[in-house]
Amino acid sequence: MTEDSKTAKVVFQPSGRRGTFTVGTPLLDAARSLGVYVESVCGGRGICGRCQVAVSEGTFAKENLTSVADNLEGATEAETRYATLRNLPDDRRLSCQARILGDLVIDIPTDAQTNRQVVRKRAEAKHIDADSAVTLVTVSIVEPDMETPRGDIDRLREAIAVETGIGDLTVDPLLLPRVQTILRSGKWTVTAAVYVDASIQPTVTALWPGKKNAVYGLAVDIGSTTIAAHLCNLRNGRTVSSAGTSNPQIRFGEDLMSRVSYVQMNPSKLPDLTKAVRDAINSLIGKLVGDVGAERSDVLDATFVGNPVMHHLFLGIDPVELGGAPFALAASDAMVLPARDLDLELNPGARVYMLPCIAGHVGADAAAATLSESPYSHDEITLLVDVGTNAEIVLGNKDRLLAASSPTGPAFEGAEISSGQRAAPGAIERLRIDKETLEPRFKVIGVDEWSDEEGFSEKIDSVGVTGICGSGIIEAVAEMYLAGLITENGVIDGSMAERTQRIRSNGRTFSYVIADENIEISILQTDIRAIQLAKGALYAGVKLLQDKLGTYALERIRLAGAFGSYIDPKYAMILGLIPDCPLEGVSGVGNAAGTGARMALLNRGYRREIEQTVRDIEKIETALEPKFQEHFVNAMALPNKVDQFPNLRSAIELPERKEQPTTDASGGERRRRRRRG
Amino acid sequence: MTEDSKTAKVVFQPSGRRGTFTVGTPLLDAARSLGVYVESVCGGRGICGRCQVAVSEGTFAKENLTSVADNLEGATEAETRYATLRNLPDDRRLSCQARILGDLVIDIPTDAQTNRQVVRKRAEAKHIDADSAVTLVTVSIVEPDMETPRGDIDRLREAIAVETGIGDLTVDPLLLPRVQTILRSGKWTVTAAVYVDASIQPTVTALWPGKKNAVYGLAVDIGSTTIAAHLCNLRNGRTVSSAGTSNPQIRFGEDLMSRVSYVQMNPSKLPDLTKAVRDAINSLIGKLVGDVGAERSDVLDATFVGNPVMHHLFLGIDPVELGGAPFALAASDAMVLPARDLDLELNPGARVYMLPCIAGHVGADAAAATLSESPYSHDEITLLVDVGTNAEIVLGNKDRLLAASSPTGPAFEGAEISSGQRAAPGAIERLRIDKETLEPRFKVIGVDEWSDEEGFSEKIDSVGVTGICGSGIIEAVAEMYLAGLITENGVIDGSMAERTQRIRSNGRTFSYVIADENIEISILQTDIRAIQLAKGALYAGVKLLQDKLGTYALERIRLAGAFGSYIDPKYAMILGLIPDCPLEGVSGVGNAAGTGARMALLNRGYRREIEQTVRDIEKIETALEPKFQEHFVNAMALPNKVDQFPNLRSAIELPERKEQPTTDASGGERRRRRRRG
Repeated sequence: MTEDSKTAKVVFQPSGRRGTFTVGTPLLDAARSLGVYVESVCGGRGICGRCQVAVSEGTFAKENLTSVADNLEGATEAETRYATLRNLPDDRRLSCQARILGDLVIDIPTDAQTNRQVVRKRAEAKHIDADSAVTLVTVSIVEPDMETPRGDIDRLREAIAVETGIGDLTVDPLLLPRVQTILRSGKWTVTAAVYVDASIQPTVTALWPGKKNAVYGLAVDIGSTTIAAHLCNLRNGRTVSSAGTSNPQIRFGEDLMSRVSYVQMNPSKLPDLTKAVRDAINSLIGKLVGDVGAERSDVLDATFVGNPVMHHLFLGIDPVELGGAPFALAASDAMVLPARDLDLELNPGARVYMLPCIAGHVGADAAAATLSESPYSHDEITLLVDVGTNAEIVLGNKDRLLAASSPTGPAFEGAEISSGQRAAPGAIERLRIDKETLEPRFKVIGVDEWSDEEGFSEKIDSVGVTGICGSGIIEAVAEMYLAGLITENGVIDGSMAERTQRIRSNGRTFSYVIADENIEISILQTDIRAIQLAKGALYAGVKLLQDKLGTYALERIRLAGAFGSYIDPKYAMILGLIPDCPLEGVSGVGNAAGTGARMALLNRGYRREIEQTVRDIEKIETALEPKFQEHFVNAMALPNKVDQFPNLRSAIELPERKEQPTTDASGGERRRRRRRG
Repeated sequence: MTEDSKTAKVVFQPSGRRGTFTVGTPLLDAARSLGVYVESVCGGRGICGRCQVAVSEGTFAKENLTSVADNLEGATEAETRYATLRNLPDDRRLSCQARILGDLVIDIPTDAQTNRQVVRKRAEAKHIDADSAVTLVTVSIVEPDMETPRGDIDRLREAIAVETGIGDLTVDPLLLPRVQTILRSGKWTVTAAVYVDASIQPTVTALWPGKKNAVYGLAVDIGSTTIAAHLCNLRNGRTVSSAGTSNPQIRFGEDLMSRVSYVQMNPSKLPDLTKAVRDAINSLIGKLVGDVGAERSDVLDATFVGNPVMHHLFLGIDPVELGGAPFALAASDAMVLPARDLDLELNPGARVYMLPCIAGHVGADAAAATLSESPYSHDEITLLVDVGTNAEIVLGNKDRLLAASSPTGPAFEGAEISSGQRAAPGAIERLRIDKETLEPRFKVIGVDEWSDEEGFSEKIDSVGVTGICGSGIIEAVAEMYLAGLITENGVIDGSMAERTQRIRSNGRTFSYVIADENIEISILQTDIRAIQLAKGALYAGVKLLQDKLGTYALERIRLAGAFGSYIDPKYAMILGLIPDCPLEGVSGVGNAAGTGARMALLNRGYRREIEQTVRDIEKIETALEPKFQEHFVNAMALPNKVDQFPNLRSAIELPERKEQPTTDASGGERRRRRRRG
């Protein structure tokens, strides 16, 4: 809270939108002025209860603020009445009633936004042969008798060993108190779940009276923004239900490094971050089993993937070591753990398989995506890129595979962009600029029509145009470049203001206005800079791996992740986000990490395959490579200062250069070599 | 509560003494009238708080009563004041203030009687070579670096594998969140505890920064009456501290079968019994580690032995199946379990090794005693008897080993005896009767002098003569037999009243009065019957095993357990409690079960040895053997109706027979054989 000016900073999560407001502003008004969706149907009278929010407390380094619940004014009479009559949880406030007194991070609870959230992760249709770690065995055992007084569980273990041939079998201690009742209620015929996987001792993990046929597994991709979970039938390999939710950790920090720094500054809150993600997963499990009429206790196995920070926070491990060099992972290898040790509400005997992490910045999600796309089984060179806050990059073929990460930052996800927002209804996701009139047309998430099509203006009222998401920003910058509004160095050309009023001056720089009705949505010079930094980092990482591999030949590019699935490969290449390649060789592969998680869930062969691949893969730390900086500088230009993009140029006419390069790194390199010679 | 007579039954635990009292009697008075020790120093004014007791609630089948807290009158003003000022726990009452309103089972808390309890279990001096399941390994690992980004825990696991040669090593998930801090605070040198035992996967169970030398283990014998625990140094095999406590489950039932029937009638209370024993063990652990200045976290391994009901209740398993044929054990084999799954307050990574149970009535305590005495490694035939509520019997040599149990009931422990009590100060433990005067002299626990020695009368005032314990009853009955006060059939000879006033008539039977001051302590005819039934059952079980083994030759008798250590072998043989054998071949071996538990704790070789022995041992169910009844009837006589006891007779002159046998089972047998021939 800035005392003298009587204003306060407020950040809304999960959208990440933020603003500065006069003290006394009702929270609902603040949210609406930022285009943050908060439902309200009673007109702000504290009656409907739809506008509930929660204060995230703590010190947020990135936002440079400390948020405390007392920075919201105490409850009004209306809010107190609502709380009494309708049972408002202790940590919730009605945003129409609560006024801003100081700096705040406000969390809009997932339940309040379920109708609004677009979770773009879904199970890809890929057939996976079932050979899961869980075997169901139905056995009949002889009744106990006094002449051979062996324990019920020991006779059962023997019967299972005889039936399956699995030796050295242990029994989960949790079954000890229950085994006699189950045996007797099954009249000495029971079905056992036996968990067999390479790294652990074969274990009887569950037991049911009589025959049991259905047994499920869970594959979860914990993203920093969204969590996607799939419920699979372990016997036939089918995915029977999928669901997604926002990662509630977002209220502790928008991107990975904000969360790491939150834990660093508020170490006692580490369990809260762990609990938040586990709770969200437990809710997803409830939904998934409910969808198919199953029980939580029918779920016997689960696989998890995530980037290293998500991986560690899920396991309850302090991620602070991942926040700085040498980015030491606490644990990188694949692991099998009891699900109950992770507070997962599955069958009490369920196990969890954690896919291995590749490196401190290249997580189990990248490993899973690698498993899904299997570049190691192809002759052609494949580039696999998962664009998130960090871009995870895998390059190579069956002979050699390299991996690295590049710190792209959150710009591709709409953060650090003035009008940026996450992919949610109201966000501009596609954009074209007419090269003659320089007028934009765009598509908004939640409305099928483009902005210049019939029906758009009627439908847009229910959604609003609230911002621009990652794929929209890519297209906006690329289209501005194609239309000549920005130079190859990314500078908005002020002289174009002569041709269109959409180019406006902001002092020393210019901006391009896309929409200007309730909220102004513009691309600022700083926005373009943010995109250039992000794409430059990604490209430099790829280039470095190409250097290492010794070839720039590239036949396949696979863009994984939500963002990778929604960006148009052509625009990505125009921007120089990905290297040149035949356009038909580029494709989005959706949630490849989730697919990899499902593969490891359903077939143990894939576990061995990714464990071996992660051992073999060459890990490159971009920060240690002297060439990275040079590649990065070249990659700031559109599409690139030195690389020619022949495939792209044969498909599309790129603008001619407007400026003389101010630095020419490759030329500089030549000069230095000459001096040495 | 018996309504018409306005009286109520009250049972005091752990002594098991009981009586019927007029409604309105203060509890303290009731206790004192039974000789139950309850401390009180304020003269019953509700000030000192020493007379605290607790009501055990539930239906007690054996006592035929239902005990509820409301059967004590509400708190008086004095008790309310004490509770307010001095913090009286919710479940405690002051017995000087509380009046009896109805039937009650009253528990005198262990903390209130610590000064009074004699726990006769201690570690026997036996050297055991150390080869424990816990290996301490100090390793230095290379610091993490970005070029080889492997997880800290994975590099650690590799370093341990290299150092120890142990492959396939897993890490307890509990260490995951802590490994990075420990490695860094140890400056990359740490000591790991690695648990290696046959039945489980080698596991890193604990980790300390720097070097660590001391690591302890716990060996526990859970008896139905007392729990004995030993703390041992796992590296040198020394027992560094021992402690014992009453088994608090006693408030749910005095003997095993009472506890089983308590669980059967109050199934929701099963967790209470389990918690009671685990809490008591956790208190013992605190005392043991405190004795040597160690921490709970220094204890990495533990072994447990107990009879099958104790074994199951400790593991949280419903013991009801053990209450009736076929006496099915839930689990009999040896097991390694995480100590934390059993709520044990040790190092969080500590493991527990449960010794195997032999049969539904022959528990892990008998297995441990067998390990300790190792009859299977001798040429001579050994009889090993552990006398508790059930007598556990092992007979044989290196060629063949047999095991059985015999339902002796609790008479040997002083229960079911009119003046009986557990071994505690005030109990008569030794007794002689002058053959001429028929006057008794006795020794009381807590006073060193015999009752006819100088100093006794001064010292006895502080202790009182409160009852007669197991060893005292054995000697009393045997001495009465030697003095001619009872016949070989166990009938008190009323005609002896002519010679001593100590023989008194009680209607149709007689009794012998030992003491008659504050409390009358007598041996009634029913007491002798109870001892005959108990010793007959034990002897019949032994005889049955001798039949099976095909030889009655016997060179060694080993009496295990507290009772077995305190009875005089000669008197046991006079009574016909054990078969004839050279007297010098009979010895008490103390807490052999505890010794076996320590052996299994300290040396894994003993674990394999007892597992193999239990697999090989022949289990005989006495209840299934037609000859048992015949042996039992013969064994009711003193010392036996048919067996001649030549060794005993050569050492001691036994009285001549007073009566003609009314039945002669061996003669009957001969007659039947003749008819068949």
